[in-house]
Amino acid sequence: MLEHYYAVIMAGGGGTRLWPLSRRARPKQMLRLIDHRSLFQTSVERLNGVFPLERILVVTVKDQALELQEQCPAIPVENFIIEPSPRGTASVVGLAAVALKARDPEAVMAILTSDHFIGNEPGFRDLLKIAHNVAQDNYLVTIGIQPNYPATGYGYIQKGDSLGVYSGIEVGKVLRFKEKPDEAHAREMFSAGDHTWNSGMFFWRVDNIFAEFKRQMPDLANKLEEIAAAWHTKQRIKVIQRIWPTLKQETIDYGVMEGARNVAVIPAAQLQWSDVGTWDSLFDVLPSDDSGNIVMGGRHLAVDTRESLVYVNQEHRLIVTIGVEDLVVVDTGDVLLVCRKDQAQKVRNVVDALKKTDGTTYV
Amino acid sequence: MLEHYYAVIMAGGGGTRLWPLSRRARPKQMLRLIDHRSLFQTSVERLNGVFPLERILVVTVKDQALELQEQCPAIPVENFIIEPSPRGTASVVGLAAVALKARDPEAVMAILTSDHFIGNEPGFRDLLKIAHNVAQDNYLVTIGIQPNYPATGYGYIQKGDSLGVYSGIEVGKVLRFKEKPDEAHAREMFSAGDHTWNSGMFFWRVDNIFAEFKRQMPDLANKLEEIAAAWHTKQRIKVIQRIWPTLKQETIDYGVMEGARNVAVIPAAQLQWSDVGTWDSLFDVLPSDDSGNIVMGGRHLAVDTRESLVYVNQEHRLIVTIGVEDLVVVDTGDVLLVCRKDQAQKVRNVVDALKKTDGTTYV
Repeated sequence: MLEHYYAVIMAGGGGTRLWPLSRRARPKQMLRLIDHRSLFQTSVERLNGVFPLERILVVTVKDQALELQEQCPAIPVENFIIEPSPRGTASVVGLAAVALKARDPEAVMAILTSDHFIGNEPGFRDLLKIAHNVAQDNYLVTIGIQPNYPATGYGYIQKGDSLGVYSGIEVGKVLRFKEKPDEAHAREMFSAGDHTWNSGMFFWRVDNIFAEFKRQMPDLANKLEEIAAAWHTKQRIKVIQRIWPTLKQETIDYGVMEGARNVAVIPAAQLQWSDVGTWDSLFDVLPSDDSGNIVMGGRHLAVDTRESLVYVNQEHRLIVTIGVEDLVVVDTGDVLLVCRKDQAQKVRNVVDALKKTDGTTYV
Repeated sequence: MLEHYYAVIMAGGGGTRLWPLSRRARPKQMLRLIDHRSLFQTSVERLNGVFPLERILVVTVKDQALELQEQCPAIPVENFIIEPSPRGTASVVGLAAVALKARDPEAVMAILTSDHFIGNEPGFRDLLKIAHNVAQDNYLVTIGIQPNYPATGYGYIQKGDSLGVYSGIEVGKVLRFKEKPDEAHAREMFSAGDHTWNSGMFFWRVDNIFAEFKRQMPDLANKLEEIAAAWHTKQRIKVIQRIWPTLKQETIDYGVMEGARNVAVIPAAQLQWSDVGTWDSLFDVLPSDDSGNIVMGGRHLAVDTRESLVYVNQEHRLIVTIGVEDLVVVDTGDVLLVCRKDQAQKVRNVVDALKKTDGTTYV
């Protein structure tokens, strides 16, 4: 195991991108989508061999903490850090950095996601080790996923000069972050060859991220110092509760990475990575049958059905599909979604509309 | 009202063509599809003004009789005739003819369906009157529906020489019956202009149909006479029960109409007729919204959804469709059907397959 190396799993998201299966109270990371394990459990288990369990921190919200602890009881309970309310990933990273600095001033943090899929786990573990080495050289490190199509759903990272070869992989300086682009820009970046997808994973020494906070988000830096001062006291929770609502809502990408110096990107070619961000994306992640269909739950009788996904949460329900192609059918009992695969991203609009008309009933 | 004129509604069918909504125990004629009334109730009510209720007979099977009586309590209970088991429409017509002859030897029978849709009810009543007049001229009378596309799902009737003009409509001699054709023949007959669809409705004097039975189905004729001899005795039911299983399984089309002399066809141009034989056909029958969608039951949230039908039997279920077109979604609780509109006829194959694998569970 690499010394001073800590994983921080961000698991507080309340996404509804796999709605109607994922809900506010049952976000994507808790779903047992891929196999009998949830995406959160998988995210923890694939760290095996790089991070001992006592060096895995989980940042989440109060409502989800208990369920996550039950899913991974081997992680020490004091490693679960509660963010009082969602204030963006900059605050999450800051809070985790305070916790780690209090524990180990030489800590190197790996900020990891809890709801992504990674098919090649040994390859991922190799990258984690490389990222540690690059972070020890005082870079803020990102992992860039090799794009296989001009996605508009991901942010992009443009790679500049080489920073050297680490364990056979050439690490580059980051020239530019580009948030989710429109189609024309996506095609441009895809064909340019020097752009990778932003995986949302970050690696750095705690002292380096504190320095960047101080430079770019001085208000956050000051407030984090206030929290740090109370960390080993009985006032810790009170201070967090008081300060948290005054923090600016900001992502780590906008707040720090875009303006940071010394940002490095490690290209990841063969991770089989997916953010499992839409129903559509499950086709990259789950095995399908000879007709390209994915069936989860229920009993499926397929007639001339191709490249379609059927999810049902009632084992005895019979689903018959006839003459359909590229369709997603998701039945959660209260809601039935029938969606063309290439329009799965519109689920988000439906959730937004339902929030307005029905409050929390269906979301 | 026309004297000696009787309606015989065939209501014993156990079709599953609108499966999973229609089942063996809840066939199409019992479904309240079009409005709050079932197709059977509609079939009775549209006779109003032509047949008094006491001259409407209903032939059905034992399992369905009670439900049909409850749906139309104004029809005298003795007008419900039970066929002991399905033996084809020739036997049904024969049994009804026996019942009518015993009641009125001069009876003219109108054999009508119980599960079809007719939009133009006044036009239909006009046709019923014309059909009576043609039947009184000793023809076996059919109604031919003007085809509006080269259907392969209907039988065809080829019209020959004119038999005269009845109330402004030229009635033709029938040259030929052609059962459900393949696509090439359907196109041929459609463009020929002298073919109409066989509506499955027939009109004749009882003496004329008995004469045809005697000539073409002498075994049936003899057995019907045996039943007729027992009609006004206490033995009636016993005799029917004994004879019925010995009758040849035969349709009136094959058994009588194809070989009959003096068959007439009344062309019906504007009936807005549909046999409601597939989910697809509901688009000809039910009103749709601006996007061409039909929603029955449940709550439907449509995003980029066109020309689709959604049926749900749970009022509070939310159905979301995104980016779908020409799709049929039917949810009956135990079964969810998702079917491309133009493949709705394949529902039949699914039902056949399910019978083999699951017995009566889903059908």
